[in-house]
Amino acid sequence: MKFGGTSMAGIERIRNVAQRVRREAEAGNEVLVVVSAMAGETDRLVQLCREAAALHDPKEYDVVVASGEQVTAGLLAMTLQNMGVTARSFMGWQLVKASGIHGNARVDAIENALLDEALSAGTVAVIPGFQGVSGDGRLATLGRGGSDTSAVAIAAGLKADRCDIYTDVDGVYTTDPRIVPKARKLDAITFEEMLELAGVGAKVLQPRSVGLAMRENLPLRVLSAFEDVPGTRVVAELSGADMERNEIAGIAADRNEARITLTAIADRPGTVAAVMSPLAAAGIAFDMIVHAATHGEQASDLTFTVPRASLAQARSAIEGHKEAIGYGELLTDDSVAKVSIVGVGVRSNPALAAKMLETLAKQKVNLLAITASEIKVSALVAERDLDLAVRVLHTAFGLDSERAA
Amino acid sequence: MKFGGTSMAGIERIRNVAQRVRREAEAGNEVLVVVSAMAGETDRLVQLCREAAALHDPKEYDVVVASGEQVTAGLLAMTLQNMGVTARSFMGWQLVKASGIHGNARVDAIENALLDEALSAGTVAVIPGFQGVSGDGRLATLGRGGSDTSAVAIAAGLKADRCDIYTDVDGVYTTDPRIVPKARKLDAITFEEMLELAGVGAKVLQPRSVGLAMRENLPLRVLSAFEDVPGTRVVAELSGADMERNEIAGIAADRNEARITLTAIADRPGTVAAVMSPLAAAGIAFDMIVHAATHGEQASDLTFTVPRASLAQARSAIEGHKEAIGYGELLTDDSVAKVSIVGVGVRSNPALAAKMLETLAKQKVNLLAITASEIKVSALVAERDLDLAVRVLHTAFGLDSERAA
Repeated sequence: MKFGGTSMAGIERIRNVAQRVRREAEAGNEVLVVVSAMAGETDRLVQLCREAAALHDPKEYDVVVASGEQVTAGLLAMTLQNMGVTARSFMGWQLVKASGIHGNARVDAIENALLDEALSAGTVAVIPGFQGVSGDGRLATLGRGGSDTSAVAIAAGLKADRCDIYTDVDGVYTTDPRIVPKARKLDAITFEEMLELAGVGAKVLQPRSVGLAMRENLPLRVLSAFEDVPGTRVVAELSGADMERNEIAGIAADRNEARITLTAIADRPGTVAAVMSPLAAAGIAFDMIVHAATHGEQASDLTFTVPRASLAQARSAIEGHKEAIGYGELLTDDSVAKVSIVGVGVRSNPALAAKMLETLAKQKVNLLAITASEIKVSALVAERDLDLAVRVLHTAFGLDSERAA
Repeated sequence: MKFGGTSMAGIERIRNVAQRVRREAEAGNEVLVVVSAMAGETDRLVQLCREAAALHDPKEYDVVVASGEQVTAGLLAMTLQNMGVTARSFMGWQLVKASGIHGNARVDAIENALLDEALSAGTVAVIPGFQGVSGDGRLATLGRGGSDTSAVAIAAGLKADRCDIYTDVDGVYTTDPRIVPKARKLDAITFEEMLELAGVGAKVLQPRSVGLAMRENLPLRVLSAFEDVPGTRVVAELSGADMERNEIAGIAADRNEARITLTAIADRPGTVAAVMSPLAAAGIAFDMIVHAATHGEQASDLTFTVPRASLAQARSAIEGHKEAIGYGELLTDDSVAKVSIVGVGVRSNPALAAKMLETLAKQKVNLLAITASEIKVSALVAERDLDLAVRVLHTAFGLDSERAA
């Protein structure tokens, strides 16, 4: 069981969490609980680091920010004990071996022996999420939202039957309910679909944790920490009744996009790589690369998107290599957005992509770029068209809830 | 160098601490820094534990409250780095082996190797105070104020030349300046005197840390974290110019006293022990035991003091053993206070005790009890007489500052 920051924000909420844990333990299950810091606490600690030094050692940052989950782990353990549940906390440095970049480390291994011993003795183990210890004995955190990854890694390491992620939403929805009030909660979704939905803005689970669960074939559930309602199962493949689900799992919307177009770039091998290398070197993610000849045989336009916050940095990275790349103008637009249909059906049914484009065309939504991957088709649109695009696609793909909004 | 919670309360103050540390490092010294949590933070964490469970597992309490010093250690390390000082934090669980009662553990050993390596490389080591790790791998805290003990234990373990305790006062005073504005800062004081002053209310240093420094013969300094003024050296023996100091180091005042008198107790061996055992079993400290025959040969009064907050508990512990003890009445008074003269001179000069009693008698201060130890003479007085008693003794023993108050 993993509980997020909103679920742990204050003693009353921790008591609510403890009641849920007790119910699982009393049902005869062996239970491990991974906890986040109280909502707001990590932000407070990050802010202290920023005030201490604008550029700070990530190893010391890890020491500071890892403290938030330590506090909630201790508090939950004592709350469980107070309810008559045998429980104890473990520390991240006792259990989780991590490596890589401090502040964004990855989990290498879980020390199962300590946990096995606790579980065999009928003890509920409470573990601070988001952290482990590096090879040189320093605290290491896994990056924001890393508690999901902690939970999945620990569950996989112990070959758990299931990993339940308790959060402040009650499951995974077909789209953002703030855009489409008729959005519907999914009973089940595949790992791949979840990854695509997470990657394009549905931030229910940290994408890294979903990837890890997929690799380890560990079934997840996304559940509300506050309401007793069924959540969404995240599984390797849909089966049984879940097969009846729509071919499209959901519509993803992402406003965090900016478009860059380079005009009149040389149409020869290596040009696209020459553009993307400086971005990669600067750690800027790029997406939706469209390269279409528009100026005859010799030159063409290259369009791609970057996260909106990285636009200025991307521009200067490219302008610094203008001679090597060779292009006419660098045009940017930061009022674009991406709408995507996501579903395992896309793989086998090309008609779905066509239906998406027709639906948008009928509404006169101008498409700035289109890209497709295995289970997703994305269109770049003007940001002002995004809500309309999401709504009409949600209806067209039969995702609207039958309940009135 | 050890810095208390007031010195670490916020980034601006941490920057001030870092400047002091840099100065020591730039003077060519090998420096270790032990830090407290930000002022108020430990109280906040203790309160969270209380809300979680009135009676809580001390091991989980330790997990929660140890986080405060972890945060300040990381923040100070990054602040030092930002000033160009090579520095890194270590964690209590890497360095300090502890045992005993969780929440009030004692230091068993220091892992010197890690620290030696850092110091040899010219790195300032920043260490969270107040904590270590127990034999079974659990976080263990040393009790409130335990950062002083951490600092002394680590300094002694590394055979440091000196341990400087930076605090929000600028040294050890001859008495409480709130009572006697003419109180004077001492240049030097012995460990024994410091222990007696700490034990009776001058809470500049945690008594346990002073005891440890005395055992290890580690010179201490008490210094202001905010002002650049000489502090007070705490040493094994006064020597050189310090010998010129008054025979009495200071006057201690303690309001935290309550008196219990048992009338008409049987005057036979074992009676005092029969009273004190139930108190010891309840963890109640007692002091100033006076047993004087007043009712002829068969019975007498027994008077002693307990901390004021323990009075109700002490009363019920004794009343629960009334038959076994055998006494007439149990009388209590919670408006008493203790005034003491403290100094190595008491050992060799019995005239000092006489002078104390004469001085108080001249002011018609009624003495409810008198006790003496190696370097201290204490008198129990009505609380309303305390300030007067402290003032006249301070003057009589030549402690008044020459500066006008």
